[in-house]
Amino acid sequence: MSKNVFTEMDGKFAGNEQFQNEGADYFNPQAFIELVYARRSIRKFTDEKIPDHIVDECLDLALLAPNSSNLQTWEFYRLKSEQIKKDVATACFSQPAATTASELIVCVARPDHWRAHCKQMLATFSSLPVETPKSAILYYSKLAPFVYTVGFFNVLTPFKWIFNTLVGFFRMVPREPISSFGLGVWSIKSCSLACENLMLAFRSQGYDTCPMEGYDSVKVKKIMGLPSKAHIVMIVGAGKRAEGGMYGPRIRFPREQFIKTI
Amino acid sequence: MSKNVFTEMDGKFAGNEQFQNEGADYFNPQAFIELVYARRSIRKFTDEKIPDHIVDECLDLALLAPNSSNLQTWEFYRLKSEQIKKDVATACFSQPAATTASELIVCVARPDHWRAHCKQMLATFSSLPVETPKSAILYYSKLAPFVYTVGFFNVLTPFKWIFNTLVGFFRMVPREPISSFGLGVWSIKSCSLACENLMLAFRSQGYDTCPMEGYDSVKVKKIMGLPSKAHIVMIVGAGKRAEGGMYGPRIRFPREQFIKTI
Repeated sequence: MSKNVFTEMDGKFAGNEQFQNEGADYFNPQAFIELVYARRSIRKFTDEKIPDHIVDECLDLALLAPNSSNLQTWEFYRLKSEQIKKDVATACFSQPAATTASELIVCVARPDHWRAHCKQMLATFSSLPVETPKSAILYYSKLAPFVYTVGFFNVLTPFKWIFNTLVGFFRMVPREPISSFGLGVWSIKSCSLACENLMLAFRSQGYDTCPMEGYDSVKVKKIMGLPSKAHIVMIVGAGKRAEGGMYGPRIRFPREQFIKTI
Repeated sequence: MSKNVFTEMDGKFAGNEQFQNEGADYFNPQAFIELVYARRSIRKFTDEKIPDHIVDECLDLALLAPNSSNLQTWEFYRLKSEQIKKDVATACFSQPAATTASELIVCVARPDHWRAHCKQMLATFSSLPVETPKSAILYYSKLAPFVYTVGFFNVLTPFKWIFNTLVGFFRMVPREPISSFGLGVWSIKSCSLACENLMLAFRSQGYDTCPMEGYDSVKVKKIMGLPSKAHIVMIVGAGKRAEGGMYGPRIRFPREQFIKTI
């Protein structure tokens, strides 16, 4: 297990007011531009292994992505067992990005963890050397449970919908999530933010990645023993790029299609 | 309109074999570690404006995120109209991260664009100076339409489910998407990857961000005139951090809860 880099770094800020300006003076646009340009999806890797401490550091950086209500409803499975790795690669339709990857990381959204993590946030607050504002305590003890509870088998969904629609005539109201499906989407977004950190981290270390959504999710969950409430967000293959591992030039349609000013 | 930085850079690679090693020698882990640590969600901004060319560059970097099948089913709305910006901030429950933000960028998933973008990919292939492999042409002309078609009002959903389940007994099969909801999730993931690029880009330029999911999506869509098939993934507020804009020290639960090795 690598040292947990961010706990160590955060130690600098906890307990005093320094966190207020954490990162404020960071300025290095060129490094980030170069990194983003350097990241391409690579679909064939050599058999060079990625050192454990680098994989761990990349995973640690994934966990520093922003995430909704800081509820951290995500999990990252590094497949070390040769058999599981092989079976999952097969369930990725044996695409070379999976079969040749030195690392396969299955990125999973765990919307079902929101309630436990609300409690964990409250417990963490009380252990901090800085005082937590009352509003934050209220948020995790009252507001978040109100917004995220959907009931067993979505029993609350119609009531939440009617409530939101009626109240919505008179004032602003949060519309989502009202169902376990919506809660899944909520969790998948945060997990995806972390996935981007993960891939950029590997590239910054001189390795490449391929995010895969082409897999048989039912089979992968079975192989890994994941519960039905877990959503596989994507499977990230990583390794050292092989010759011919980049399948084509980067293609992006004109920015005017995507960047709108209104 | 800023120059489109990546089109210009890609020009270097298109038409020759150089793209094969695009970015391969990039190695700067420290810069990325520092950037990720420096990014915190900031909830109060000063009234300092972000120069247009910087906003544009950050948006351009968002568009370089990996995305599913490279179908680029995303849109980023920069709110320039004072009235729209004010109304959207109100629909974000008037949270300071929205009301004080110098920029509000509404990040939108457009799953409904997949078919048009398949055709656009095929058109782009034929305009490239490099030859496109037949498999790529087949992918966008046959396989992608097969996988992503869900039919009007999800008429194909039960058939896709039955097909996947039956075929799934004998071989690997892609399970998603089978409905417009699943197609939404598919598009939301890619858009989220781009959102992380966007936020890191602002931080690399010395600015801060706050990703918001706390908004009345029905109202925001109405204010912006977005069609019902568009999904607001998140709203990113950006600007120069104000004193007291960071609400607390960074909290992450122990990595062992999230990083699993199997």
